[in-house]
Amino acid sequence: MVQTSSFDQIKANPLTQSELDQLNAYWRACNYLAVGMIYLRANPLLHQPLQPDHVKRRLLGHWGASPALSFTYVHLNRLIKKHDLNAIFIAGPGHGAPGVLGPVYLEGTYSEIYPDKSEDVAGLEEFFRQFSFPGQIGSHCTPEMPGSIHEGGELGYSLSHAYGAVFDHPDLLATVVVGDGEAETGPLATAWHSNKFLNPVRDGAVLPILNLNGYKIANPSILARISPQELESLFVGYGYEPYLVEGSDPAAMHQMMAATLDVCIDQIRAIQTEARRSGEAQRPRWPMIILRSPKGWTGPREVDGHQVEGTWRSHQVPVSQIHSNPDHLQILQDWLSSYRPQELFDAEGKLIPELKALAPVGQRRMSANPVANGGLIRKELNLPNFRDFAVDLAHPGRIEVENTKIMGDYLREVMRRNLHTFRLFGPDETASNRLSSVYEVTPKTWMAQRQPEDADGGWLSPEGRVMEMLSEHTLQGWLEGYLLTGRHGLFHTYEAFAHVVDSMFNQHAKWLDICKQEVPWRSPISSLNILLSSLVWRQDHNGFSHQDPGFIDLVTNKSADVTRIYLPPDANCLLSVTDHCLRSTNYVNVIVADKQMHLQYLSMEEAVKHCTKGIGIWDWASNDDQGKAPDIPDVVMACCGDIPTMESLAATAILREEFPDLKVRFINVVDLYKLQPEREHPHGLSDRDFDSLFTPDKPVVFNFHGYPWLIHKLTYRRTRQERIHVRGYKEKGNINTPLELAIRNQIDRFNLVIDVIDRVPKLGSAAAYVKERMKNQIIDHLHHAYTHGVDRPEMTQWTWPFD
Amino acid sequence: MVQTSSFDQIKANPLTQSELDQLNAYWRACNYLAVGMIYLRANPLLHQPLQPDHVKRRLLGHWGASPALSFTYVHLNRLIKKHDLNAIFIAGPGHGAPGVLGPVYLEGTYSEIYPDKSEDVAGLEEFFRQFSFPGQIGSHCTPEMPGSIHEGGELGYSLSHAYGAVFDHPDLLATVVVGDGEAETGPLATAWHSNKFLNPVRDGAVLPILNLNGYKIANPSILARISPQELESLFVGYGYEPYLVEGSDPAAMHQMMAATLDVCIDQIRAIQTEARRSGEAQRPRWPMIILRSPKGWTGPREVDGHQVEGTWRSHQVPVSQIHSNPDHLQILQDWLSSYRPQELFDAEGKLIPELKALAPVGQRRMSANPVANGGLIRKELNLPNFRDFAVDLAHPGRIEVENTKIMGDYLREVMRRNLHTFRLFGPDETASNRLSSVYEVTPKTWMAQRQPEDADGGWLSPEGRVMEMLSEHTLQGWLEGYLLTGRHGLFHTYEAFAHVVDSMFNQHAKWLDICKQEVPWRSPISSLNILLSSLVWRQDHNGFSHQDPGFIDLVTNKSADVTRIYLPPDANCLLSVTDHCLRSTNYVNVIVADKQMHLQYLSMEEAVKHCTKGIGIWDWASNDDQGKAPDIPDVVMACCGDIPTMESLAATAILREEFPDLKVRFINVVDLYKLQPEREHPHGLSDRDFDSLFTPDKPVVFNFHGYPWLIHKLTYRRTRQERIHVRGYKEKGNINTPLELAIRNQIDRFNLVIDVIDRVPKLGSAAAYVKERMKNQIIDHLHHAYTHGVDRPEMTQWTWPFD
Repeated sequence: MVQTSSFDQIKANPLTQSELDQLNAYWRACNYLAVGMIYLRANPLLHQPLQPDHVKRRLLGHWGASPALSFTYVHLNRLIKKHDLNAIFIAGPGHGAPGVLGPVYLEGTYSEIYPDKSEDVAGLEEFFRQFSFPGQIGSHCTPEMPGSIHEGGELGYSLSHAYGAVFDHPDLLATVVVGDGEAETGPLATAWHSNKFLNPVRDGAVLPILNLNGYKIANPSILARISPQELESLFVGYGYEPYLVEGSDPAAMHQMMAATLDVCIDQIRAIQTEARRSGEAQRPRWPMIILRSPKGWTGPREVDGHQVEGTWRSHQVPVSQIHSNPDHLQILQDWLSSYRPQELFDAEGKLIPELKALAPVGQRRMSANPVANGGLIRKELNLPNFRDFAVDLAHPGRIEVENTKIMGDYLREVMRRNLHTFRLFGPDETASNRLSSVYEVTPKTWMAQRQPEDADGGWLSPEGRVMEMLSEHTLQGWLEGYLLTGRHGLFHTYEAFAHVVDSMFNQHAKWLDICKQEVPWRSPISSLNILLSSLVWRQDHNGFSHQDPGFIDLVTNKSADVTRIYLPPDANCLLSVTDHCLRSTNYVNVIVADKQMHLQYLSMEEAVKHCTKGIGIWDWASNDDQGKAPDIPDVVMACCGDIPTMESLAATAILREEFPDLKVRFINVVDLYKLQPEREHPHGLSDRDFDSLFTPDKPVVFNFHGYPWLIHKLTYRRTRQERIHVRGYKEKGNINTPLELAIRNQIDRFNLVIDVIDRVPKLGSAAAYVKERMKNQIIDHLHHAYTHGVDRPEMTQWTWPFD
Repeated sequence: MVQTSSFDQIKANPLTQSELDQLNAYWRACNYLAVGMIYLRANPLLHQPLQPDHVKRRLLGHWGASPALSFTYVHLNRLIKKHDLNAIFIAGPGHGAPGVLGPVYLEGTYSEIYPDKSEDVAGLEEFFRQFSFPGQIGSHCTPEMPGSIHEGGELGYSLSHAYGAVFDHPDLLATVVVGDGEAETGPLATAWHSNKFLNPVRDGAVLPILNLNGYKIANPSILARISPQELESLFVGYGYEPYLVEGSDPAAMHQMMAATLDVCIDQIRAIQTEARRSGEAQRPRWPMIILRSPKGWTGPREVDGHQVEGTWRSHQVPVSQIHSNPDHLQILQDWLSSYRPQELFDAEGKLIPELKALAPVGQRRMSANPVANGGLIRKELNLPNFRDFAVDLAHPGRIEVENTKIMGDYLREVMRRNLHTFRLFGPDETASNRLSSVYEVTPKTWMAQRQPEDADGGWLSPEGRVMEMLSEHTLQGWLEGYLLTGRHGLFHTYEAFAHVVDSMFNQHAKWLDICKQEVPWRSPISSLNILLSSLVWRQDHNGFSHQDPGFIDLVTNKSADVTRIYLPPDANCLLSVTDHCLRSTNYVNVIVADKQMHLQYLSMEEAVKHCTKGIGIWDWASNDDQGKAPDIPDVVMACCGDIPTMESLAATAILREEFPDLKVRFINVVDLYKLQPEREHPHGLSDRDFDSLFTPDKPVVFNFHGYPWLIHKLTYRRTRQERIHVRGYKEKGNINTPLELAIRNQIDRFNLVIDVIDRVPKLGSAAAYVKERMKNQIIDHLHHAYTHGVDRPEMTQWTWPFD
């Protein structure tokens, strides 16, 4: 294992022999528990010789990453006690739960929260049995684990979560063990640069500990197989001061780890003290540790002639077939006994007092730190009155506004009032998405070098709280960490590239789902608010690659208990929706709103009413006697999303001019889940309400922002759903003017008129003529666009023509 | 701009004055064209003084990244000519097309492919007009651009594409300009480690050129704002030998770039020569270049009192309002004139011969290299007869096999026969996904350090062709690069984590779509084959985070012309499907198949027939007179996916035992798109065929592998779709035994029987009793699972009971 390295290795021996013995004993207890969790269903403290019956029938769980995790945890406990630190622990390595559950149980938190897992033999047996057992807890650091804010089932996000946790938590230390497998993922590889956004004056500190145990499931890890010089260079290049703790002999490793952590904590404190004294935030070289230890450390050296400790073979269950192979039973017995549990636990099964005393107490325990149950310390936002930002309307459909610009004004005031608990996150697109008003209150966060011209336009500052980095992964990770530790925020991104974080969204939604269903002791946290802007329909020069409205499709796959989707048609609706989302907890709220100039339809009070209902008839756009009898209209023009709404309105205007006798009902949908039945989603309309809005049998021409089939997916259980004709994006695009793109996907006014004509027989002989004119309009328009490069002004400057 | 740096800067002046002048003139021509594309619609060579009418009405496109791209391109041309190199060019920076289109046009390729963009004034005007113009070409390096294999609309994949292109192309040099914005993304940040997988003996070389122009859309880039020491360390840490080319004076920069490229190419050749001579592949430190040049280099210094060149303000259109602001018109005129076009082009508008001579000719032009139109050099795979790997069946539903293990045996032979043109890609899961037979033919690729124990189990070798790295992004990027340059491959990954590459799938599908619809000169390339294994239904110890079958939902959002989804129910079907996919071109094929033991149903010949049809009645499982009259069955049991198929069969067996008079038709779906109408997808069944299979009106109980609503999305247009009752995954899971998980999501046999009872009134009084027994079975089973941690053996060892 030993390699020479050029970089810092602290060789002092700060531990007395007795401290060393105790620390190692505590670690032995942790390792014993980890093995117990994976193997034992009875006889938890080996009070009897091990029998096959004591062993679980199905062996699940992962040993490989566990010893180094508890090794680190135990050393951090020493540090917390020594310095009275406020610290949390984030475990990056996959399936590392046994290495964390052990110390969490030993410090008593587990039994406090789950009294049946008490600190005695019976409780320990329960504790072992539940692990990776059907209906019980998993082998990741799931929400059920006290102190966890990071499940780590999918790899790559531990480091960004850690940084998110310490932003605006000046006293907090987030210690994060990064697995060397995880370190190969893209999200992790770029998250190291988070140090360019951490301000030592007002933020806490992250201490990353890269655990090079050398192996993934079946392969060595890359970082374990490059030279020490490259390894050091890489982390110096990332801006850290790397320390190496390397070896396999526990005594030497304890001394080295203790000495290194002492140095790191001194360095962190010195950085913070100096920055806070001077008030000048410079980017320091924060320390980080490379812990190079054997995979499956202290486990069986060899099984069936194969090396196990120190290889990928110890990744999961290092020795199996315990029930059928007496040699294996013996290996397990020897392995468990090697930790000498009788020296660690008393006859009742409680950790002996000398060891118990090594752990911090109360909220200083990393497993009991309220920061890691963020809802506990969450404070409601102090929100401005969103009505103060209303767009004044004398009349629907006459004036244009950049919708997200108004939202930006509102967010500016949100940030002004909540400067230490709310942050805005976006990949280099805050100005592009028209949210730059926020810069009036706070600059962009920037700890890297600055230059004179940076003062210009959304300036950069260590004091800034607008987070911009060209990594959606890192932004989403920061925001999740920020929310999970009790704060608030909003992530905005180009609609098409929200897919970059599809998988992160999935994991966060699953975390929230479990918290709500199964973990009552977790306090609600602020919702993850995502604004999708720069939408599919306005990609004049970005083209096809930027056209994808499918993120919301993905969102509808997750539990109805934790997902909400809003498509406000104008700025006042956007304000109302945003206010609602910022007040909510435990959801993922997705808001879809474009940044370009759009017609405004509703006054503030109308908007509030409309958004509260989530769906509604727009009287002023309808000419049926809506509400009085449900079957009066000849056709229902429905729409959802800012751009489709305008086209539906323009189509309605044409229809009303061309066919004065046609009764049109106009419905706008803000809250997408209204379309689903109430038994599928809590926001869903009852069938009765749905039929009363859409009529039970009239044709519906539904103009949708996204892929059309999402509407069918949500409405397939509705009465005569086949009458709902949906238009939406169908992957027809490239470099297109707005109306041209609408036409290619048939969400434009002309095609909608044709759709109505095709579905309403009563329109008679005039219909064929109108249809022909619509087709000619389409041809004329495309000709104009292809000749002049822009839409015809009468289309783009269209306004609602009726009173 | 000037900073001192500790790392290598080559200061020699290899260019004579005349070479320098010519090179610079060629670059001026490129820059002139880039500006022309963004601004001009007429008067392309300024033969008249510039008038507002000559300028496009809508100014779209991006100037910022362009000059450095063409600077690099021009220098690479010199290198190609000097060394007769076989090279391609990949442009990472977003919207960099003007910087590449220019040189591509100048070397004649553009006019050869698009004769109306001829090399004269008229052609040039067309060339300018089409850029970012409706219905024409975009501002990325889209498929319409000769020589491009990387659109770069979404950032992060340029480097992995470059590596993928050179694997098994020993003579190829892929030069890739990485943008400093793009460099912040996770996928790019980890792709630098691709050098641990590049074998100098059999692979070509990648020369990465990181262009630090300092700015993204609205922010400085991180890498431009760290110290030179950190910057150097980072790339040394990544395993490269970084060279710095820094400055803004064109003459000095030309000399430095030429000198540096000379050194790099010498170094690359020395590495390759030595490796190929000795036959021993060591991982070398490959050279890379950091090109630190001003953003918008040679553009307007200042507009309206703001610095433009060298800042984010030159990202897009540096000076606008040309029509309304005469000062701006003047700036544009001066800017264009600064390149002295009259010295570069003759009166007819053709590049003058002295400059023309600087470009390589024929296929040595990077824009005409057949490698970048990979279908041209693609050779059909030499495929073994998949029937040779058939599982022998005497009877359906009696024996169990690991389905992907059989596929692995087949892939082993595929690799054996196509060792230089087929690679397998997977994130550390090849063995886990049961594909390890391939190791019998070729090891895993590994150029980093090796240790003695590595010989054990799927060993590591520079000669290996099984690609494993814990980065789905990198793997997918490599495979895309490999396919786009004419080769074949398959990417396998855990089903839930395919979402990591959702966005990459989107981009590749869009690329294929455009190629098929709009770019007839691009030859078909091999399909992107994705095997999803370790499926949602077998996550006994991975738990909730690993349960997500939604990748295929995303796939159905993309064009029907390029997407195919297969869910083979057993190993013989999997073989047939795999063979089909490996022969296909220009699709994304997604195969969903689990790795655990599963019952086998069809003989090889039955499987071939079934997969050819894509959907079919299983006679042996049905007891209606299928085919003779379409309305005979009382109920249709339909299923799709290996695990749901077994549960549907088990339910059918219970039904047939309990209700001998009940006529059950059993349908299995392999090709998911069969469910869609033929007008929506080329594989879709006609309504008539659909009704003939599913009957027009009988209840259908459809057991689906994925989220149930996907089936509704595909079938909402079918006759009486509301009778189709779909079961699937609905986000109910955690640590679960297989049958327990099925029960929680109601895809299990007992719930399916209840579903039938609830839908078939004729079952009479016995039905209530059977229903009660099913409920008791569920309770008993869950009790067993929660007590013993495993499913009851009579469930997991179930076999089809009928003859």
